[in-house]
Parts: sequence; structure tokens; C-alpha cells
Amino acid sequence: MIKSSPGNFLEDFHVGMELRHATPLTLSDGDVSLYRGLTGTRHALYCAETVATANGFERLAVDPLLAFHVVFGKTVPDLSLNAVANLGYADGRFLRPVYPGDTLRAESQVLGLKENSNGKTGVVYIRTRGLNQRDEEVLSYIRWVMVHKRDRSSKRLDARIPDLPKAVDPATLQPTGCYDHWDDALSGSGHRYEDYAIGEQIDHVDGMTVEDAEHQVATRLYQNTARVHFNAFAQAKERFGKRLIYGGVVISLARALSFNGLGNAAELLAINAGTHAGPFFAGETLFAWSEILDKAELSDTTGALRLRLVAVKDQDPGQFVRLGADGTYAKGVCLDFDYWAAIPRR
Amino acid sequence: MIKSSPGNFLEDFHVGMELRHATPLTLSDGDVSLYRGLTGTRHALYCAETVATANGFERLAVDPLLAFHVVFGKTVPDLSLNAVANLGYADGRFLRPVYPGDTLRAESQVLGLKENSNGKTGVVYIRTRGLNQRDEEVLSYIRWVMVHKRDRSSKRLDARIPDLPKAVDPATLQPTGCYDHWDDALSGSGHRYEDYAIGEQIDHVDGMTVEDAEHQVATRLYQNTARVHFNAFAQAKERFGKRLIYGGVVISLARALSFNGLGNAAELLAINAGTHAGPFFAGETLFAWSEILDKAELSDTTGALRLRLVAVKDQDPGQFVRLGADGTYAKGVCLDFDYWAAIPRR
Amino acid sequence: MIKSSPGNFLEDFHVGMELRHATPLTLSDGDVSLYRGLTGTRHALYCAETVATANGFERLAVDPLLAFHVVFGKTVPDLSLNAVANLGYADGRFLRPVYPGDTLRAESQVLGLKENSNGKTGVVYIRTRGLNQRDEEVLSYIRWVMVHKRDRSSKRLDARIPDLPKAVDPATLQPTGCYDHWDDALSGSGHRYEDYAIGEQIDHVDGMTVEDAEHQVATRLYQNTARVHFNAFAQAKERFGKRLIYGGVVISLARALSFNGLGNAAELLAINAGTHAGPFFAGETLFAWSEILDKAELSDTTGALRLRLVAVKDQDPGQFVRLGADGTYAKGVCLDFDYWAAIPRR
Repeated sequence: MIKSSPGNFLEDFHVGMELRHATPLTLSDGDVSLYRGLTGTRHALYCAETVATANGFERLAVDPLLAFHVVFGKTVPDLSLNAVANLGYADGRFLRPVYPGDTLRAESQVLGLKENSNGKTGVVYIRTRGLNQRDEEVLSYIRWVMVHKRDRSSKRLDARIPDLPKAVDPATLQPTGCYDHWDDALSGSGHRYEDYAIGEQIDHVDGMTVEDAEHQVATRLYQNTARVHFNAFAQAKERFGKRLIYGGVVISLARALSFNGLGNAAELLAINAGTHAGPFFAGETLFAWSEILDKAELSDTTGALRLRLVAVKDQDPGQFVRLGADGTYAKGVCLDFDYWAAIPRR
Repeated sequence: MIKSSPGNFLEDFHVGMELRHATPLTLSDGDVSLYRGLTGTRHALYCAETVATANGFERLAVDPLLAFHVVFGKTVPDLSLNAVANLGYADGRFLRPVYPGDTLRAESQVLGLKENSNGKTGVVYIRTRGLNQRDEEVLSYIRWVMVHKRDRSSKRLDARIPDLPKAVDPATLQPTGCYDHWDDALSGSGHRYEDYAIGEQIDHVDGMTVEDAEHQVATRLYQNTARVHFNAFAQAKERFGKRLIYGGVVISLARALSFNGLGNAAELLAINAGTHAGPFFAGETLFAWSEILDKAELSDTTGALRLRLVAVKDQDPGQFVRLGADGTYAKGVCLDFDYWAAIPRR
Repeated sequence: MIKSSPGNFLEDFHVGMELRHATPLTLSDGDVSLYRGLTGTRHALYCAETVATANGFERLAVDPLLAFHVVFGKTVPDLSLNAVANLGYADGRFLRPVYPGDTLRAESQVLGLKENSNGKTGVVYIRTRGLNQRDEEVLSYIRWVMVHKRDRSSKRLDARIPDLPKAVDPATLQPTGCYDHWDDALSGSGHRYEDYAIGEQIDHVDGMTVEDAEHQVATRLYQNTARVHFNAFAQAKERFGKRLIYGGVVISLARALSFNGLGNAAELLAINAGTHAGPFFAGETLFAWSEILDKAELSDTTGALRLRLVAVKDQDPGQFVRLGADGTYAKGVCLDFDYWAAIPRR
């Protein structure tokens, strides 16, 4: 009997399958500090108890992306230990704030399956839900991931591909923040909902070089166990020859960089889509730019921006590579991330 | 007057000598998060308040190895600043859980002394006890360490070597966990006490590459001040030519790797023995395998496994080097650690 | 409209100008742990709740330098994003302890301005105050910084240089600690106020090598956004060709190294002056020595030492470079820092 887990392969999944993932995690002030130290996040709503409680939160909540990475990490041993690639996200929703002291666990349901024509791999579509210690859903998202078959000769599966929304309907967004006591001096940005125009692009001018120690600590903090991030000895024999940085680390760094230009868009409400468009490695420097895809008025004090956040690497500000109209990604693009964030109105 | 401490030399110790070590430390949620970020530990019992309180703990406790490293660290300025090598451990006992907010301090007693025939070094045997803010003993262990003599011509000491138990008697083990509400889905392992057989070996298939930044942060977190871990400028002129990773970092990483195969054996009860069998350096990748040395039924719901945890470096899973019957260690073996852990019964 | 902040240039400042800086930060146990992991600080007063509360503190406070770096970091986007160099500090005062859970924000006032004769740069003198969630001043200091002009042809400013005290008057120092239950065994030093003589020099024998991951995590923890510390891609084209370590990281490391010789001088009371005398880079090893500049009796139980803390790099203990009488700094000197610290009396 082999007691080490080999992870699941394509044949191990079936549509409707339910999974309860291991290692519930109690988040704490310690995670909040480490997340700040590792990403450089500066959104006042998630940094200052005073700002959070003045604007609708009970206490200082953890950054929604930290909660997302923790929930995601729990699914890795069951869903993507043998993954070829994490292909996309859809219908991600942040439903409740997560406070230090909350314990998060994760459950998933298989929504769809498709075998690839090469007979070696396939795609699994999964809905994952993050739950707190009161069994309240705090976040939920769909992702699809390419996994290996265990046995190339195993019987071909009937494909079932779920319908995926292109974006979360803004009418369903429910921010926790009320933004009726927002102070632009404290948030570090004078730009509010009305100041952004659909189609506008913002270059976030700062860059962040990432070290192996940094992405490893982050990825372990989230308890993401995918081997490609940690084992230089094994990776030396693989395609890239080195450790690959977890895509969630790239999302958080790009989002932290986007503070400089989007400092008031702190509260993440939904993830519409996301593509890890290219690899990112230690020693490289990450940059980011954003595009305003859509806008929605949620209340008298609160708006929402639909933002495309694009992370690129090793490029000069002012010359960041853009996305091709053909849907392909130029060299140097690491991330194409589509999300809704709340922002105070004037 | 020199105010910087030179540490103690062999001549400074005598049998029966009592030491109260400096810098009591209040452990916090921050230490718990950093310990997770640095080791990748995933034992649900020490990650989730829900799991801990359902199984006999008052609150979420800190990992026993974190408490051990902190107590050990306090002894370094007095016991091993001038150490040649940390030779072994015996009779280690984890007596009480340590909770965030507890303040740990350390006291030691010299049990034995022996001068080496080279006249340059000797061995000191020490019992160290970790105490909390209520002066309750939380852990206790013996270690012996080779230290330099201050003066080669100083009078030879009479040797006194204490009797050391080969292993902690399982009849004396007192787990805090009661394991009557254990959930294998949440712990991430379906293997319980009855599933392990004496003599069984488990290869933990994952590997972890360690960076200088990681082991330095860990070792400072534990306030272990041994110079060999931090000072690349001085180490460039020494035997290895570089910084040596603290053996406690190796213990914690190997134990975190052993989760994959021993996920239910969370609660450390005793350290029977331990040898830092070879050096481990930044850039190298650590692997681990375990052997079941013994088993003991502690209650209707709780068993204990006596485990030999062996850490090896830069090797392919499936080909991990084993230990020679002659008691010597092959190249690539970093740690041979013998401990008791509690595990739920069926 | 450019939404990314370009920072302020010399022309943007005027004497009397008031600035409220962004991103108030709630400090937590997580920051305390990370600060210990990153610096190796061992002062019992800031490590152990038991020691803190026995000696006059309500609870375990955060290290005053951690609070200082956090307040300083808030000023960077407004004051020194376009800085050429941080030239000096004066009249720094630590006025109240900062406890985990406190939220710090920063306000500044421009005290003086001077354009340099090259027409390209100038010097701004600023008083910055750190305030907690009750609007109580917790610390205050003056710094002066060389910044770029936006436009070389812009109208020359009238110079106004404020009077700066050479040192904080010890009669105004107000320690929080009462030091009436001090235990030298727990603090790790037997040396008290009476044991130090004016003019005495102490070599702190330990060295600490710093990695890029370490200084980056520290500098992000403090939310200091100066680009020179994070962006290897851009720095490759600049003067040093690599990332520069934030001077606050050097201050904290040097102070942590000074524990070995000054272990009882835990409570920082004032910063008299400070010069970042030379650059420090990842891979280099920091050492430190101290000189007793002055002494003052504050109460029956408490004295204060005025200390010059000098950080040097890549040097052998016993051969640390000293300061020239001409006020210039020899190669290898990174920091010349003049401060008052409280220390128990006999």
C-alpha cells in the first residue's frame, strides 16, 4: 500500500462528483502581515481597522485574494497535483468578508469533463466553494484545469462542458463596504468611480522583482502544494528547468502594483475570467496595466469597475506589451485577469 | 571589559550547573503563520481552530516543533555558541500544548561532561526545560553537544556521562488530543493507527528546495543565534565555505514533507533520539522517508506511532538512500530523527 | 489624465505645507513576528509580555523601530519617491508605546527648502508625526532629503533652512519602562547603566548576511514604496546596477546586532541624528559597533545612554573600520546613527 497521495487523474473524476478538501485553515493577523510583506498591498480598506470600520466592515478583514488563494490551495491535492495547466476561471464571487480568526475550508463539485484528442490529457471543470466555521459561503468560483490521464488506453469519456458566464452580472454584486466615510488622503488616491471611463487604460508604473524565497513562502502560506513551485531538483529535468511561480502569486503582485492608479478600488467583488498567459520565474520583474472594461452604479455611495488586469514581465514602463486582437498573448504577458471591484462614488 | 558575549567553553561547565536562559518569548499567531509559510506544514490539528477544539484542545495550539525550536534557540548563546556539532537528543517530552499568547522561557541543567582525547574539544550533556508564563513545564529534552575548550592546556576534566534512555516509554505518553471527532477528509489522510505496520517504510514523495532567506528568517524567528547560519562573510573562510542550515529547519521541513503519508500523525509526543547526519545548504532540495519503529495503544481513540524520520537531499523519489546497518550514514542523509506521534484509531 | 502617481518634485513643496499621508496601518502580532524573523531582534522588553508588563508597559509593545519604519514608509509616496538621497534625521522622539492593534497614520509639515547650485536638485526639510487611532502622537522626527526638480529651468526658490538640534535634550526623555523588576538573566546582559563609560566603544561581534528576499519583505511590510529597493529590471540600468537595501533595514539589523553588548538598552527614546553613509546590497554581510556618546540619569531605576551605532559591511570583527575625525566616512561604512536608549540602573 502506497500511503503518499499520487493525486487524481482524469479517470478519477466524474460529473457531479463532490469533494471535501483537506486542511481547514484558521486565518490570522499573521497571514495578513505576511501577505503585506510578500505583495506590498496598500489598499487602506484592508490595512487599517479605522478605515474598514468607518466604511461598513465589522473589523479589519483579510484581503479577498488572500482568502481566494487559501481556498484554491486546499483544492490542489485533489484537483491539480497532476495538472498540466490551470486554464481559466469563471463566475468567481466574493460573498462575505473573511476576518482574522475565521477558519476556511473548501468543497468542490465537478461540473464537466472533456478528454483531449491526444488521448493523454483532458480538462476538468470544477466549482469550488470556500466556507467559514459557520458553514457560510465566503467565496465561490469555477475553474478548469488540464490534467493527465493515468492510462492512455483507458476508455474515452463522454465530453460534458458546462455553460460558463462571460462575466458576473453587476446587478448581483453585493459589496460589504458602504463607502460613506471614504477619505481620499488616507486611501492614497483622489480618483473615484466617476473619474474612470470605459476603455481607459492605466499603466501602473512600478515593478516588482520576485525571489524564489518569496514565492515559495507565499505559496506555502496558502498551502498550495503543487510540486512545480518548490522542487528545484526535479524541475531541473523538466520543461522550464526551474521552479515556476504560482499564478496566484502573480495575481496578487499585479493587483498590488495596480494600487498606483486604482488605489480606491480596494474591495474585490467578483472574478469574471482569468488566464495565466505565460510563465513567471524568480529573478524576473513584474509590471501591470489595467483597462476599464465596464462600470456599474451599485448605490449612492458605491460604484463597481470591471477591470482587466494584465501582468507583463521585464518591460519598460510606457512600453508595456498590449494584447493582440486575435486573443493570443504576446511574449512577456503573464496574466490576463478580469474582475469587478467596488469603488467609492463622489 | 568586553561586553559582547563570547559564549561558554568546555571549561565553563560543571555537572549540576543550572542556567536560566535569556529572552523569554511570547508566541503569537504571527509565529504560527510564519512557521506555515516557511515549512509548508499542513497538519489540520495545528492549522484549524475547528479541528483542534473538536479533538481535545482548548484553542488552536502552535506546532510542537515550533515551541521546541524556540526553547532550543534560547539555549544557544549559553550552550552552543562555540559548538563544533550538536550530537544528539534523548528523552524529549512534549508535556503541555503551547497556545498563541503564551510566553516561553528556558532553563537548563548540565548532566554530564566528557573531554575528547584530542584535548581541544569535549562533550556537554544538558537537560533543557521549556516553561510557560505560569512556570508550567511545556517541554523537556536532553541534548549533547561538542564544544571547544577555551584553552588546550587547561586541566583535564573527570568524565561523567549520564544514562540516556534509548526511547521514551510509551506508557508515559500523554497526548492532549482525544481524537474522538476526527474527520479524515479534513485531515487529508485516510490512514489511521491500525493501517501502519511496524517495519513499514513510507517514501514522502515531495521535495522542498530551501533558500538562504528562508532558513535565515526561520532561525531568527526561533532566536537561534548560532553564527554559522547567518554570516556568509565569515563562513567563506570556514570548512563549508557557506552558511549551514540550522538542523531544526531540517527537522521541520522533513516533518512537513512527511504529511504526505502520515497526515493523521499530527501531535508530537516525544523525541526519542535525533542525529543531524549531514549538512544541508541553501539551493539543495530536501526529501524525506519514514519508518514505523513501534506502535502503542494509548486509549480507545488514540494510538501512538514511533517513527524514524530520515531527511535526504537531492535524490529522486523511489531511490532515496537508506541507512546502513552499521550505523553510519550514506552521503546525502541529513537527519535521522526518532519520535512518537499520536494518531487517531479506527 | 495620468492616474499613476509620479510623486512630488522640489517645485511641489513650500514651507509650511501640510501633508496627510496615505494608508494608515493597523499593526499586529504578525508584524512583530515578521520583524523578529527579519532582524533577529532579541530585546526581552519587546519579545516577552512577562518582561514588558513587569517593567511598566501595559502589554507587549512593538519595537519602536518597527513603528518608525511604518511611519516613515507612509511618507515615501509624497516626499521621497523622486529622492536622490535621504540626507539626515534630527529631533526624533518616541512619545508613546505602540501596541499590536494600534492603527498608525502619518502627517508631515515642510520646515525648509533649499535649491542646490546645480539647478537640478534641492533639499526639503520635513517634520513627520506618527499618530495612533486616538490621534495621539506616538513618534515625531525631522528628516531632510534631496529631491529632483521637475524642471531645471523653473524659478529658483528662496532658501529656508530650519534650525536643527544637535541632539535631543535628555531632560525631555520620557521612557515608558520603569525597570524596577529587571532580570539580567532574562534580558541576556549583566551590564547596566553604571557599567558603560562615555567614550567606550563596543564591537558587536556577530554578522548578518542579507538576501534580496529579506529586505524586500521588510520594506514592503513597512509599506515603503521607493522603487530603488524592488525593481531589479530598472536598477540594472542605474548607478548601482542592482537593488539598494532600504536604510531602515540597515538601522534595524545594526540595532539587532548591537544586542550583543547592549542587551539591556532596549527602549529607544530618541533619534539625535542619522546618516546613511554608504550603500548596502544583498549578499553583503552587516556588522556593527557602538560608542557611548553621553549618559543621563532619568530616575532611580532608569538611565539613558546616548549611543552612536555604526554599521559596516564585509569586515572582520576586531578590525571594524572607524570614523574619520574629518566627518567623512571610510569605504564600508553604511550607517552612522545617534540615539538615546533607556537602560536599567543598578
